[in-house]
Amino acid sequence: MREKINQKSRPDPITEKDLILIYLNEKRQFLVQVTPNLKLSSDLGEFNVGDTIGKPFGYVGKTHLGKEFYCLKPSTADLMMKVKRTTTIVYPKDTGFLLLETAIGPGSKVIEVGTGSGALTLVLAKFVAPDGVVYSYDRREEFIENAKKNIERAGYIKSVEFFCQDVAEQGFLQKGVDAIFIDVPEPWGIVPKAAQVLKGGYHVVSWSPNVEQVKSTVDALQNYNFIRIKVSEIVEREILVRRQGVRPRERGITHTAYLVSAQKIYGVRS
Amino acid sequence: MREKINQKSRPDPITEKDLILIYLNEKRQFLVQVTPNLKLSSDLGEFNVGDTIGKPFGYVGKTHLGKEFYCLKPSTADLMMKVKRTTTIVYPKDTGFLLLETAIGPGSKVIEVGTGSGALTLVLAKFVAPDGVVYSYDRREEFIENAKKNIERAGYIKSVEFFCQDVAEQGFLQKGVDAIFIDVPEPWGIVPKAAQVLKGGYHVVSWSPNVEQVKSTVDALQNYNFIRIKVSEIVEREILVRRQGVRPRERGITHTAYLVSAQKIYGVRS
Amino acid sequence: MREKINQKSRPDPITEKDLILIYLNEKRQFLVQVTPNLKLSSDLGEFNVGDTIGKPFGYVGKTHLGKEFYCLKPSTADLMMKVKRTTTIVYPKDTGFLLLETAIGPGSKVIEVGTGSGALTLVLAKFVAPDGVVYSYDRREEFIENAKKNIERAGYIKSVEFFCQDVAEQGFLQKGVDAIFIDVPEPWGIVPKAAQVLKGGYHVVSWSPNVEQVKSTVDALQNYNFIRIKVSEIVEREILVRRQGVRPRERGITHTAYLVSAQKIYGVRS
Amino acid sequence: MREKINQKSRPDPITEKDLILIYLNEKRQFLVQVTPNLKLSSDLGEFNVGDTIGKPFGYVGKTHLGKEFYCLKPSTADLMMKVKRTTTIVYPKDTGFLLLETAIGPGSKVIEVGTGSGALTLVLAKFVAPDGVVYSYDRREEFIENAKKNIERAGYIKSVEFFCQDVAEQGFLQKGVDAIFIDVPEPWGIVPKAAQVLKGGYHVVSWSPNVEQVKSTVDALQNYNFIRIKVSEIVEREILVRRQGVRPRERGITHTAYLVSAQKIYGVRS
Repeated sequence: MREKINQKSRPDPITEKDLILIYLNEKRQFLVQVTPNLKLSSDLGEFNVGDTIGKPFGYVGKTHLGKEFYCLKPSTADLMMKVKRTTTIVYPKDTGFLLLETAIGPGSKVIEVGTGSGALTLVLAKFVAPDGVVYSYDRREEFIENAKKNIERAGYIKSVEFFCQDVAEQGFLQKGVDAIFIDVPEPWGIVPKAAQVLKGGYHVVSWSPNVEQVKSTVDALQNYNFIRIKVSEIVEREILVRRQGVRPRERGITHTAYLVSAQKIYGVRS
Repeated sequence: MREKINQKSRPDPITEKDLILIYLNEKRQFLVQVTPNLKLSSDLGEFNVGDTIGKPFGYVGKTHLGKEFYCLKPSTADLMMKVKRTTTIVYPKDTGFLLLETAIGPGSKVIEVGTGSGALTLVLAKFVAPDGVVYSYDRREEFIENAKKNIERAGYIKSVEFFCQDVAEQGFLQKGVDAIFIDVPEPWGIVPKAAQVLKGGYHVVSWSPNVEQVKSTVDALQNYNFIRIKVSEIVEREILVRRQGVRPRERGITHTAYLVSAQKIYGVRS
Repeated sequence: MREKINQKSRPDPITEKDLILIYLNEKRQFLVQVTPNLKLSSDLGEFNVGDTIGKPFGYVGKTHLGKEFYCLKPSTADLMMKVKRTTTIVYPKDTGFLLLETAIGPGSKVIEVGTGSGALTLVLAKFVAPDGVVYSYDRREEFIENAKKNIERAGYIKSVEFFCQDVAEQGFLQKGVDAIFIDVPEPWGIVPKAAQVLKGGYHVVSWSPNVEQVKSTVDALQNYNFIRIKVSEIVEREILVRRQGVRPRERGITHTAYLVSAQKIYGVRS
Repeated sequence: MREKINQKSRPDPITEKDLILIYLNEKRQFLVQVTPNLKLSSDLGEFNVGDTIGKPFGYVGKTHLGKEFYCLKPSTADLMMKVKRTTTIVYPKDTGFLLLETAIGPGSKVIEVGTGSGALTLVLAKFVAPDGVVYSYDRREEFIENAKKNIERAGYIKSVEFFCQDVAEQGFLQKGVDAIFIDVPEPWGIVPKAAQVLKGGYHVVSWSPNVEQVKSTVDALQNYNFIRIKVSEIVEREILVRRQGVRPRERGITHTAYLVSAQKIYGVRS
């Protein structure tokens, strides 16, 4: 019986075009697409990424200076943090929280306003695949172009449709979506349009660095008959576990954004 | 063109067996499965849940005392928080973070050690569906039985296989899994078994309330050739946005767990 | 030489009227003034506080049920937390921070607006004694009466002068003070008066639970030529160090107030 | 009546040897002792500090480039942060909290172990003056020498006595002190000596960056009959209040130390 379950005993080999995380140490980690003649070099030495083709994931190689490097599977957080940025991105700590504040999953149809660098787009695309779709809006063509490359490299481009338009003015081209993610400087301008196309009972989420933005967004949500409005802040503290002792990291990020979520009612509150 | 995209203009009607969140206010919210003659009553009045069948999601009804209730789509976080508990559960704030610390998504094969109440199980099941699978282990049959009901109600039971056995002693029945989630009081006892069946380069995550547990887990991970070990704490602060002013909530949860993640290398570090 | 330094080898005895902290355990601790026939009773038993007269500070006694109690010196934080409250009080974590944000010390002349329950008043009085003075203002006579009793019991009444008047309208009766502490719902209304009587270059501090209050206060400070305006929040996390492990406390206070400090310039900014 | 109270209407003039905070902006602030021919220069221009003699505190001057500078009263926190450092210092946020965790005030006799740069020493000296005294111990003569200069400049040297000796081995030269502040890498080694000389019922406080240090300290405190042991962490978040919006600062200090406090009982717990 046991044998039958353990079908998979051979490791996945690294193949061309795979996206891998080359890890030398905390400060030297690179997300690369495997290509036969790609050379990677740092102050710890250089090596040919192409030589890892055929090796198992998790492979331990050495630079020409004899330093070890590791061929790791990038996490979803890695994919986000390593996009080529044209904008600030939403952090994994906030993304994970927001994702669970909605009902989306495989098959969902989701709108994102503010494609930005595509960091969130690729996460949404990943989790609605294979049958769902992300409708991603941005006013700036150049952001969409950059985001497309980031998402393509990550392998989730099939689940995304891009729209270059001003949502506050022109609204959306879809209806009956399962969630709307708003990442623009003035989320309150998007709320009236969101109220039109979001399914009754479903979720809109938004995030902003400043308190005033959050207040205006909450006001707009109340005016457009959203309820169960909740605002949160997620603080991530890294804990260093070292031979000399355990303690939180001494310096780091202390604020990213306030996170807003709400649900649409069908019709109007009395 | 616009019309063609907007296929879906009619709202989803609530149908029998749907899981909905009946929301009266912050302190009165109930996750229920719609049944023709299910009565719900609180100090704000009572009503027949069955009467919502055929109504659109987001429907606003009234109790016999004239108080409004809302029929909302439960978020993934709601599904977690509303499981019937036989154990403490992992919180959405921690779950969302851990989810992105791994590479899992639709189609992934994931092991969970410590089924508990099934709160995490259902999230994992949701996000690996339809083709992936969660192998969930617990030593206690009664926990598995309760978790099964929770996951069945949430609609994700097809993606889960349960195993009632002591992993620290007997190990796992699978090989080549994409991630392992460990939620037991002594995660370090699971690490040697996890190292055997996790794919090279992929992720193990674990969480524990106490510092000592984290230290022992990190030690075990180092001994079993895991690298890129990271420990974090996620603090959620709710911000109250009210007419009288904006401020963080004054009392609340101040600690749940320390979160550990790591990646397995293939072979041995020199 | 050593002998000469060690003059004091006998312990302080507890004497009548001493303020002591009777400690049975974390949840049963009482700040009492020692009186010959004062009985103290709890579910852990009863005893006569007067019997501790003549015993050394730190004395370990027993209730009639054989449970130990300890006669401890109250900390300044204890004195604050144990005032009889007619209002919310400023917490020690915030008080300690604000105290050091000013230049006050022995001999300082300090204004406090919002006597409240006198928790802050007694701290200020303690640290400006014996030659300094706290001018404490409140609009409500009954607050001042209660505060007086709290401060008298703590032993610092000699360093406080009380004024029952509306500062926003009537201003202050002093000039040239070393610091002004503002604890009222509308601190911005006090700022113009504070600017008149605070010494050039010295400090005003204020605190409020809501963001809007802080913004209005900062606006007023800017309008009245205060500079080096700083706003902070102090979060205290208790860490439980127990046999079974170390971890932060799981529930607790998550917000008290935002703290504002600023310094007055002499004359006007160009 | 009013006139009689308002004795002081003329501002304090800046005089030679005064310690003032020259403030140009957030990143350019200097703690200087006023001297006739002291020139101060930065990229915003230069000026003669001596020219401020006779000007009022709070004076607004201009550099030769026309930029304003302000002559401010340094806060106690400024005095701490601007010591010349030979060691890491304890932060004001932690100091203010610890100060109130003890009973010390004017007239107290306090021991400090670990003079370090003297940042804490000067605060303790300030708040026990004029009649109290700080007995400050350090094993390294060069630390004491540097600290002396820092405390002398701040004006509190009269209230401090320094002792260059190894307390863990040689113990203390005083008895019956009101509080003991321990700032050494191994506080547990000091605890047995502290228990001998601290007054019964009074307070010992200690702080360390790592969890293990805290555990060992708590263990030692329990072994030496200290009770009411409490461990805290104080997190300071700066809030930026700007025209463009209010939000916490985005990067900063995320950990300094865990703070331990405890009280000594007289005799032995049963």
